[in-house]
Amino acid sequence: MKIAIMGCGVVGSGVYEIVRDMSERLYKGCSDEISVKYILDKKNLDEEKKALQINDINIIANDPEVGVVVEAMGGINPAFDFCLKCLNSGKSVVSSNKQLVAEKGEELFEAAKKNNVSFRFGASVCGGIPVIRTLFYGLAANDISSFEGILNGTSNFILTKMIKDKMTNSAALKLAQENGYAEKDPTDDIEGYDAARKTAILCSVCFGKHIYPDEIRTEGITGISSEDVEYVDSFGAKIKLIGRGKRLENGKIYAVTAPAVIDGNDLISGVEGVFNAVKIKGNKVGEVFLYGPGAGKDATAGAVVADVLDCVRAPGFDSTYSWKNGTKNDVLKFDEYETSLYVRGYVKDKNRAVSAIRENFDEVKFLSRNNAPENEIAFLTEKKKEKDLRTAIDFIDGFTPATVIRVN
Amino acid sequence: MKIAIMGCGVVGSGVYEIVRDMSERLYKGCSDEISVKYILDKKNLDEEKKALQINDINIIANDPEVGVVVEAMGGINPAFDFCLKCLNSGKSVVSSNKQLVAEKGEELFEAAKKNNVSFRFGASVCGGIPVIRTLFYGLAANDISSFEGILNGTSNFILTKMIKDKMTNSAALKLAQENGYAEKDPTDDIEGYDAARKTAILCSVCFGKHIYPDEIRTEGITGISSEDVEYVDSFGAKIKLIGRGKRLENGKIYAVTAPAVIDGNDLISGVEGVFNAVKIKGNKVGEVFLYGPGAGKDATAGAVVADVLDCVRAPGFDSTYSWKNGTKNDVLKFDEYETSLYVRGYVKDKNRAVSAIRENFDEVKFLSRNNAPENEIAFLTEKKKEKDLRTAIDFIDGFTPATVIRVN
Repeated sequence: MKIAIMGCGVVGSGVYEIVRDMSERLYKGCSDEISVKYILDKKNLDEEKKALQINDINIIANDPEVGVVVEAMGGINPAFDFCLKCLNSGKSVVSSNKQLVAEKGEELFEAAKKNNVSFRFGASVCGGIPVIRTLFYGLAANDISSFEGILNGTSNFILTKMIKDKMTNSAALKLAQENGYAEKDPTDDIEGYDAARKTAILCSVCFGKHIYPDEIRTEGITGISSEDVEYVDSFGAKIKLIGRGKRLENGKIYAVTAPAVIDGNDLISGVEGVFNAVKIKGNKVGEVFLYGPGAGKDATAGAVVADVLDCVRAPGFDSTYSWKNGTKNDVLKFDEYETSLYVRGYVKDKNRAVSAIRENFDEVKFLSRNNAPENEIAFLTEKKKEKDLRTAIDFIDGFTPATVIRVN
Repeated sequence: MKIAIMGCGVVGSGVYEIVRDMSERLYKGCSDEISVKYILDKKNLDEEKKALQINDINIIANDPEVGVVVEAMGGINPAFDFCLKCLNSGKSVVSSNKQLVAEKGEELFEAAKKNNVSFRFGASVCGGIPVIRTLFYGLAANDISSFEGILNGTSNFILTKMIKDKMTNSAALKLAQENGYAEKDPTDDIEGYDAARKTAILCSVCFGKHIYPDEIRTEGITGISSEDVEYVDSFGAKIKLIGRGKRLENGKIYAVTAPAVIDGNDLISGVEGVFNAVKIKGNKVGEVFLYGPGAGKDATAGAVVADVLDCVRAPGFDSTYSWKNGTKNDVLKFDEYETSLYVRGYVKDKNRAVSAIRENFDEVKFLSRNNAPENEIAFLTEKKKEKDLRTAIDFIDGFTPATVIRVN
């Protein structure tokens, strides 16, 4: 079986190396040896890869020897067109591209189904952790009711440094950039866009219909301060950027990607640094928790190769590994959901603000930290529809909110 | 596709119920509807199940409509013969029976291969956690270098109660029995035999050749006392019953099931109650950690049904999901491995014993606990071949060891 690799960056070259070096053990379940025939890329490749380099997608599409195509280009254009072309030419496609899957998954499944080939994307969420295949296959006998996960290593690294080493948000970001964990433009990671794409994919996998990133309430970690970390630490909890999806009793889906206050006894709270983790609830299994590296060349490339091996073993379309079309009505407006909130802000007159807060909420727990300035106040609210809580916050007399975080 | 269930105890009846109630979603990836045609059991079943009850294995073996047979009988006899008969009649077999898989896995794979059918056993280790399929498929691009896991919920419940609620070992066992977590005869769970079978299966899966339970050094938790829990807590660690396998540089396998001292920062140390968890190291992925319910009717039955669905989708033999024959030379003698030890014991003359201990070890760290009797002593040793450490312990003048536990 020959494979083609589209996009020879970090993941693509990792896939090339694993396939080149793979022992007989790796493809023992496949009918024959697997090797890379083409690498589609425009940039200069090293001598070894240059021998396989092409820059015309039609060479792949028209070569009957190629059975599986790996898409590791990133972005939508031209990745989407190229994947469609491959599927429509009867080739299975394995993608590590979360943007593509989150935006175009349903269309790619349609094409895969029409051509009776496979479309797989295990590496697009949580890199080396086999979350996608666990949801589709390992928990196949379950109805999944909810998931929550740390889906972005960069933001988790920053929060971990803030929590464990008392760094400021900006110093932790700088360290992440110096260590190569954050891009020069870190927007996608720290504003939650990357995690929201993965949340969208997990929602689609768990609940069986395509949920798009723009349907998911998305908040980043840029507003989280050392003060917040300290207040949350005061009751043994931790702030984590969480992607969450939940199937509600009315059939709607609750989907949010945002910082959350996580209890210190929750396994998720112990996930540190660039690691990822997902907690899944199923009606048969109860709770399952998966943890591992969310990125990295070898971990991600290994997940791609695992999918390639699946495609070689079972090249036809597998509707178990797919989702259906969604509608804009599937997702609940985020602030209709019941939660409690952590709130920090500034006051003019502390005593007056405290009374106003007590008046506006049924249950409130004030928090304290060492050396807090006189005009700072932080508290936890009761559990209620978020929009009602937000209205109550707006109406606290003489109070300017600085941070609002949902409590798990 | 018709299936048959052999053994209608907790797991078997759970499988029956899931298949009976399964929606179209569950078998959407399969060619047709799945239903139970036969239940093989000798005991009295309820009216509903009685309609499907048989007590002759040949009815299953000779019925061409039956494609997959679930073995949930437990034990070796007659489960082994029945499974062989089914495989040899061209039926795929799914087993939740760890004893069968640990003792007879290689022979069953041989029969499956010969008849080009599937033999799967995801539910035999860690119940609802998809560990086996993660190792075979999700981490297919990896060479697994080691695993360690909490593989027995009963013993973990007992240890958790000792650690968190300061219960004695015997009181915690009694509570486990009252809660239905431990059998009236708890030997298999508390002496480590159950965990050793699962360790054997995981070794075989990870390292590709059949490792048998009797090749694995096995120690239970009956010797662990509240005093040990307290000493280990004094340096922030926890005692857990761990199944461990490691591929060594000389090609040998280190395999032990025994209490171990686990660092408090290790995710494994946070696994409490009847839950199970496994940490896996692969050469591509680094570290992956899986956590969830290790037993329970629905969780285990759900794992069986996931395997049944795999068999329906891919009925042929898949050598990726198999291991080869092993030899008695594959496993290192346990005390040839380098570890450090926690040691607790009794002395006649404390000062003399302390000097003797300092003399017998290169590095030693004495431990303390509140209200320790004058004649008690506990310490951690340097890392060294276990047999050398054990010899050194034997030669401490005036010292009677009570507990020895390996430190991770």
